[in-house]
Amino acid sequence: MEITTIVIYDIEDDKVRYRISEACKDYGLARIQYSAFSGQLNRNKREELYLKISKIIKNKTGKIIIQPVCEKDVKEQKMIDNGKQEGSFSGDEK
Amino acid sequence: MEITTIVIYDIEDDKVRYRISEACKDYGLARIQYSAFSGQLNRNKREELYLKISKIIKNKTGKIIIQPVCEKDVKEQKMIDNGKQEGSFSGDEK
Repeated sequence: MEITTIVIYDIEDDKVRYRISEACKDYGLARIQYSAFSGQLNRNKREELYLKISKIIKNKTGKIIIQPVCEKDVKEQKMIDNGKQEGSFSGDEK
Repeated sequence: MEITTIVIYDIEDDKVRYRISEACKDYGLARIQYSAFSGQLNRNKREELYLKISKIIKNKTGKIIIQPVCEKDVKEQKMIDNGKQEGSFSGDEK
């Protein structure tokens, strides 16, 4: 069963951070913040993504959280979205 | 009922970002990433924090997500934590 999955990461190395963002996109996740993605994944896909990200980061400094969030909790989400300056995500796209 | 609540934010303005991190700490949340906090909050406290953060950010550019995560989903969380260089969070503490 696919449920919302949020991936948030702190990665110092630009190339590693870029490759992780590309991995998230490969799994159909959409960027929700500079260093956070969200989308629908089942448990197998989450496991795959986790292994893929583990291979990308290897021993480089960083922290990644892959958090499934059930529909009930998604409905309780509160968001403040005061827009974005155009291109403000571009720092990740090296 | 208190459940795990994750707050993730993209804030451009250093002072605003700092004030939001302080608000999260005031509500007992702990920093889990450069721009993410987590802790136990009930619905009233989440609402309070949401209002407090709304007041802090006002019309400044930024995006904040306050996401409750039930115990079942917390157990499904996957994390890769390859440490942190000392002081690497200090950029937020202006």
